[in-house]
Amino acid sequence: MELKPALQARIDTKTKPLGALGGLERLALQIGLVQQTLSPALYKPTMLIFAADHGIAKSGVSPFPQEVTRQMVLNFLNGGAAINVFARQNGMVVRVVDAGVNHDFGDISDLIYAKIGFGTRNFLETPAMSMEQCETAVDKGAALGAQEVVNGSNVIGFGEMGIGNTSSAAILTSKLCHLPLAQCVGRGTGLDDIGLQKKRELLSQAVARHEVGDGPMSVLATFGGFEIAMMAGAMLGAAEKRALLLIDGYIATSALLVAAKLQPAILDYCVFTHKSGEPGHAMQLASLGVEPLLSLEMRLGEGTGAALAYPLVQAAVNFLNEMASFESAGVSERCAA
Amino acid sequence: MELKPALQARIDTKTKPLGALGGLERLALQIGLVQQTLSPALYKPTMLIFAADHGIAKSGVSPFPQEVTRQMVLNFLNGGAAINVFARQNGMVVRVVDAGVNHDFGDISDLIYAKIGFGTRNFLETPAMSMEQCETAVDKGAALGAQEVVNGSNVIGFGEMGIGNTSSAAILTSKLCHLPLAQCVGRGTGLDDIGLQKKRELLSQAVARHEVGDGPMSVLATFGGFEIAMMAGAMLGAAEKRALLLIDGYIATSALLVAAKLQPAILDYCVFTHKSGEPGHAMQLASLGVEPLLSLEMRLGEGTGAALAYPLVQAAVNFLNEMASFESAGVSERCAA
Repeated sequence: MELKPALQARIDTKTKPLGALGGLERLALQIGLVQQTLSPALYKPTMLIFAADHGIAKSGVSPFPQEVTRQMVLNFLNGGAAINVFARQNGMVVRVVDAGVNHDFGDISDLIYAKIGFGTRNFLETPAMSMEQCETAVDKGAALGAQEVVNGSNVIGFGEMGIGNTSSAAILTSKLCHLPLAQCVGRGTGLDDIGLQKKRELLSQAVARHEVGDGPMSVLATFGGFEIAMMAGAMLGAAEKRALLLIDGYIATSALLVAAKLQPAILDYCVFTHKSGEPGHAMQLASLGVEPLLSLEMRLGEGTGAALAYPLVQAAVNFLNEMASFESAGVSERCAA
Repeated sequence: MELKPALQARIDTKTKPLGALGGLERLALQIGLVQQTLSPALYKPTMLIFAADHGIAKSGVSPFPQEVTRQMVLNFLNGGAAINVFARQNGMVVRVVDAGVNHDFGDISDLIYAKIGFGTRNFLETPAMSMEQCETAVDKGAALGAQEVVNGSNVIGFGEMGIGNTSSAAILTSKLCHLPLAQCVGRGTGLDDIGLQKKRELLSQAVARHEVGDGPMSVLATFGGFEIAMMAGAMLGAAEKRALLLIDGYIATSALLVAAKLQPAILDYCVFTHKSGEPGHAMQLASLGVEPLLSLEMRLGEGTGAALAYPLVQAAVNFLNEMASFESAGVSERCAA
């Protein structure tokens, strides 16, 4: 018997009405297919957090100053951020990557050094990065993603930190999903109406300044962030080694949009974990035709949605492996129609 | 400072944008208020599963035979049902109550004996139970709910098993939420179109047969099940001792509708965990004006939605207790507007 109908049969003979575990059943089927087995297992769940700074942050697109990126990296390393709390609770390893923070962290153990530069340039003036930087970021990410699988993980979440990165995400979404820019621009960490209006105007100027089409690498190089580019690479590298990818919010899905343009098959490996309160995220999800597991109106980033949804991923694997069947439990099946 | 603003201040000074944890922030506030503390804690999370049989089951309202109730009770006790898998994963204790299964289980340890009768009568013909049985069921439930708190639990989920119980739930919902019956009747464990039509006709006949108003106890006695009555009591007994109540699907929310008519303040103690695929549940939730944490299109009962959402409840408590504040982490706050 082929794997897919065999997995479906295994799901359908569990002691429950047909289809009664809803979204968890679809998830169990997906994970079985990703792992190519009737008995999937999750090993060393890992949250990879990519941090970088953005030239655009200096133009006032965020209510928080740029130094918060570096401060939050230290908060991650000290275990005090939301992602640390949720990952700790749910048994996930947190790994923090300096993809391009505007700070020299020196020799901090636990921080993965993969810095492309001290923040991108301001895309209001020049492309955020050179094509070479962009390719290097994607390649380093791919190596990091693959390395986590080599180190024993088969389920990887992707988080990020970078003051200003919802501005990059908005332009990437507009370009890659072919949506009007204004719809893709949101309040980020909490802009008021005046701030939102200013952000829309600045990003509109930025888009007008650069002649790029919708090629994923040129859009990424012109408007992206180092953390977004490296995350896109990490997704590709991990999926190539058949890891399950946990995708959460606006920034992570922006990276996935790039990755999926480069390699559409990556979508088979993705579990969409949370619909962000940032309105552009719903448009990304609609463009991909997917519905996430959670919708808690969070808009924090860091991979928090992925860490919070991880127990549901475990539940999908566990019911498949641990639930009794009608036969094994001696439970009567439904009467013939 | 009063507790509510003090809790809100504690939430707002965590290292995240204001409000960025969305639904988890509201949950943290609620739990702090239920426990009357700035530092809530969850002890001995417990899933109470109430099982009973229904006279209406013999009229063909379910595709499964009545014996499945007893078979599933044994499946719960053997650890093979979905609720066992999810509770085990998330560290919850499962306790199974025989509220009125049509079977003599004899002396099985681990099964809580609280049997009101060997199934209700068929409300197509007579009231499902006498008022005395109904009151006894509620009282026994209240004692069981309170006892769990005395035994050290402060967070209790409510599950159920009873072939035919979506028929009771449909009539209870129609009566207590003042909704047309046909809208409240769903496919339950998986009726086809013809079965659904028959279920609607039978329940409509049942409602026409009995002259009851919308008083919660008379509706419950006439159309309820022993497990629903006992669950309503258990919710009341646990809330009276300030436990947090995890409410999931169509049957559990039917019990809560009864409990809330008797004691409206119970709603402050309820966390709504999952929106069921059974369509009447969305109407119950709308009537209560609440939105659950999860919406996974499950329709299994057993308390599965509550067990799956429990890690989100933990996450709300954990971020409140464990996240760094802007001050403690040395993270800059947002710039003045």
